[in-house]
Amino acid sequence: MKRKYFQRKFDIRTYECDFKGQLHPLALFNFMQELASTHADRLGFSVQKLMQQKMTWVLSRLHLKINKPLRWGETLTGRTWPSGRVGKYALRDFQFFNQTGETTAVGTSSWMVIDLEKRQPLKLDQLFTSDVSLKKRALADDFPALPEIDNSENQCKFAVRFSDLDLNRHVNPVSYIAWALESLPEPVLFRHYPMEVEVSYRKEVFLGDQVICKLQQIQGTESLSYIHKLFLEKNGQEIARLRTLWK
Amino acid sequence: MKRKYFQRKFDIRTYECDFKGQLHPLALFNFMQELASTHADRLGFSVQKLMQQKMTWVLSRLHLKINKPLRWGETLTGRTWPSGRVGKYALRDFQFFNQTGETTAVGTSSWMVIDLEKRQPLKLDQLFTSDVSLKKRALADDFPALPEIDNSENQCKFAVRFSDLDLNRHVNPVSYIAWALESLPEPVLFRHYPMEVEVSYRKEVFLGDQVICKLQQIQGTESLSYIHKLFLEKNGQEIARLRTLWK
Repeated sequence: MKRKYFQRKFDIRTYECDFKGQLHPLALFNFMQELASTHADRLGFSVQKLMQQKMTWVLSRLHLKINKPLRWGETLTGRTWPSGRVGKYALRDFQFFNQTGETTAVGTSSWMVIDLEKRQPLKLDQLFTSDVSLKKRALADDFPALPEIDNSENQCKFAVRFSDLDLNRHVNPVSYIAWALESLPEPVLFRHYPMEVEVSYRKEVFLGDQVICKLQQIQGTESLSYIHKLFLEKNGQEIARLRTLWK
Repeated sequence: MKRKYFQRKFDIRTYECDFKGQLHPLALFNFMQELASTHADRLGFSVQKLMQQKMTWVLSRLHLKINKPLRWGETLTGRTWPSGRVGKYALRDFQFFNQTGETTAVGTSSWMVIDLEKRQPLKLDQLFTSDVSLKKRALADDFPALPEIDNSENQCKFAVRFSDLDLNRHVNPVSYIAWALESLPEPVLFRHYPMEVEVSYRKEVFLGDQVICKLQQIQGTESLSYIHKLFLEKNGQEIARLRTLWK
């Protein structure tokens, strides 16, 4: 029988840490990507396998909550499992532990399988006859819409880099998060750490595209929280919306 | 007795691969950084330890030669050792093997220790009373000057990102390489792979800086080879020069 969850260890490397020696949240998102890819591969539905049948996985939502920033030299164990299905969406959850078994971060995500030619989502029930989900969530989130920005205070521009491209030849999901985090004012970046990141993916981005990130601080909350809107410079189309919380 | 070399395994992760599923050369440079940091730490002269004494390591030259691009799922062993001293420079070499023991890449580097206040190089003989070098080079290079550009055909601009900063709060050495590789024409990036990269570091770069990369193809060679000149937009100061070879 195939195990319903998959886990592996990650030794935190120097270049995965920020200027303070703390594990950069982008590295955690990279670990989530590696865990998801490896587990999907072992269960027989990797991106590579789907692409042979003119389909691919597309990420729709991503949510990570960090309890404790880790440091260079520490070892982290990441665990992942398919956590259910909702309509055309497959859910996958994530949990990270440190050496003493303490949960240092939790995450969840929702995915679609799309037809590569028609660029349309496919019905999961027709693709996968058996359901390999563990009916347990690491982070309870039914993915409601993230709030709109009404008054942007900051704006940054990013050109897509060749190294942003993944196997699907579009920008990988972690680069969207890199852009959003970069758009914060410098004093926040130097003094605070992003403890929670939520992403709603809307559109693919390709080499040659220019991306604008607009930013708005959410008022009326005790903690430092922002909405980020990413859109294409050429036509204003929204490509992703994010919410981040800093401590 | 401390071992004169240090080695560790790297499982190649999805996000370390390019759009073809080949290990991205930037990932190999990251592995070199991790190997060098960990070994320096074990030998008692990590960046962290030097910083307590108001000093730090600064990279002067870096040279990597890839024999064979690896792929997702493969395991790589990286080995490093201090390989000698030349005046104020400490040399460190690198060798990468695949599962069958085949050497897939070799590298070498030269470093200085600088006084953090005076920003001047220090004499190694006065800092380290014993020499822990293995007198063996993985890649023979006495680091002659790289050729000047005389006729640039291409120009790209990059803004320093917060995520480019390392423990010294300046841009990490791998970001310079990322900029240089990005500056190639798209058809080269899509059809070729960088098999050899040489870097000569000149100056530190900080958050807020804008970097220009000028590019020139080296004529009269059978292989596709380029010189890259990186400089600051604000004052034209050269920050690094690179030579790359693509197959």
